[in-house]
Amino acid sequence: MSNHIEQYIEKGKQTIEHVLNNLINRDSIPKNLYDSMIYSLFAGGKRLRPILLFASYEAYEMNVSKVHKTAAALEMIHTYSLIHDDLPAMDDDDFRRGKLTNHKKFDESTAILAGDALLTKSFEIIASDEQLTNKEKVFLIQSLANASGPEGMVGGQILDIEGESTSLNLKQLETVHKLKTGKLIKFAIIAGAYLANTDEEIMNHLKKFAKYLGLIFQVQDDILDIEGDPEKLGKPVGSDVDNQKSTYPNLLGLDGAKKQKEIYIEKATEALTLAKANNSYLMDLLHYFGEREY
Amino acid sequence: MSNHIEQYIEKGKQTIEHVLNNLINRDSIPKNLYDSMIYSLFAGGKRLRPILLFASYEAYEMNVSKVHKTAAALEMIHTYSLIHDDLPAMDDDDFRRGKLTNHKKFDESTAILAGDALLTKSFEIIASDEQLTNKEKVFLIQSLANASGPEGMVGGQILDIEGESTSLNLKQLETVHKLKTGKLIKFAIIAGAYLANTDEEIMNHLKKFAKYLGLIFQVQDDILDIEGDPEKLGKPVGSDVDNQKSTYPNLLGLDGAKKQKEIYIEKATEALTLAKANNSYLMDLLHYFGEREY
Repeated sequence: MSNHIEQYIEKGKQTIEHVLNNLINRDSIPKNLYDSMIYSLFAGGKRLRPILLFASYEAYEMNVSKVHKTAAALEMIHTYSLIHDDLPAMDDDDFRRGKLTNHKKFDESTAILAGDALLTKSFEIIASDEQLTNKEKVFLIQSLANASGPEGMVGGQILDIEGESTSLNLKQLETVHKLKTGKLIKFAIIAGAYLANTDEEIMNHLKKFAKYLGLIFQVQDDILDIEGDPEKLGKPVGSDVDNQKSTYPNLLGLDGAKKQKEIYIEKATEALTLAKANNSYLMDLLHYFGEREY
Repeated sequence: MSNHIEQYIEKGKQTIEHVLNNLINRDSIPKNLYDSMIYSLFAGGKRLRPILLFASYEAYEMNVSKVHKTAAALEMIHTYSLIHDDLPAMDDDDFRRGKLTNHKKFDESTAILAGDALLTKSFEIIASDEQLTNKEKVFLIQSLANASGPEGMVGGQILDIEGESTSLNLKQLETVHKLKTGKLIKFAIIAGAYLANTDEEIMNHLKKFAKYLGLIFQVQDDILDIEGDPEKLGKPVGSDVDNQKSTYPNLLGLDGAKKQKEIYIEKATEALTLAKANNSYLMDLLHYFGEREY
């Protein structure tokens, strides 16, 4: 991985953390709830979704500060989903990225409410963003709600839980990922390009790019669960195999999964070239997603 | 209570249930999630918030269909909050209005996700409402998110939980209720009047009205926990006294609580008169709130 993209990622990370830090008003939120929201917002996230949003916007426009708050709202939704996913009734995880999960650090009711609060706040942040027109706000809110609600991420989470007790075929597995992680990744790409005023043709190519990017993200996740470094990942590996969970390697074998990833990378590259973004950071991020080690 | 207002409430209830029934697309949501969302949406809610929104709009404008979807979004947020409040980690209730709570009918993870889905969907519904301008949508989303998020309902829920283990004074108790139930009731009033294009002066009187209406709602809730009919309420009474929970009667005595309610009713009536809505259904609803038996 080139030094170039790593610098871009690091800069994006700092930017989004600065924006997030200034968005939530300590004085108007009960202390315990505020602490719990902030704890998870700053629990070491990779900030990939905001960085994708920045890169998508910057492939077509300057002045990336226009998308800062939208990116923050997106990261808050991602964070809420992790808090709820970790709950005892869901994945029942005590640690995430080497830190206590929200309900272990605080308690279960606080974690549920901190998730609810982050989700709700994200829409308020977009609706209050003074840099956007009303038309832009409405487009973003509609897209983000659709991507994260019952027809998107939450729907994918239900299917994922159901999939743990049945075996899925490749098509069903792709549906789960398309909803659970794909739709928010797609939102990042679409929101950036929309705010940069791209035309419909480019948008259609970007939608295709985003689809494959989401799948690459997931197949790499599955591969890392087999041959990743637990130190770098901040979590144990091999849990998917033990659980006989439907994953790419369990369905296609490890080599098959890697080949599938290459097919996705090829298709994503093609779409990005057609979207005239072949020289953008999006292209570097595509390879970063495919090769990431954590 | 006059027959008049009861008819209005019954008609509003039918309207909102019809609207809700057509808003959620069965085909694009995983079956179990869809069933769980619909179960709680149609679990016998009184629909008071949508009815207040209708009445607020109709105090100043005709053609109430303009606010139908906003009212549905509001009811979905209220429903999500009940699902999450009932969870084992929160109030741990098995029954609500004589029916199994969501996590008892389905399971805990489904209940958490159904709540998340309803919350998220509510913002999508407003953003997609073809009857509203973008400016109106943004105003509604910003207000609704603020009313239901960490500076509103979710914040109130945290304070309410914390209040169970400490004793609150009257001012602290009012703060809890203002956030936990008051802000959504206020949203109902404000949203209706805003969509009816009322001027700022009227809006200010309505905000005061809404504040007292919320408090009346709560003090009556506390009174019903002492002298209500468990049959009509669909839940046992006396639990607040047993729990030594901070309530109006526990703080002021039963008679004191009733006197406090009368003071609130007087103030609400005054504000409503100044808002030139003294001949509206809002006035009837004010008394209905104060005298309701369930």
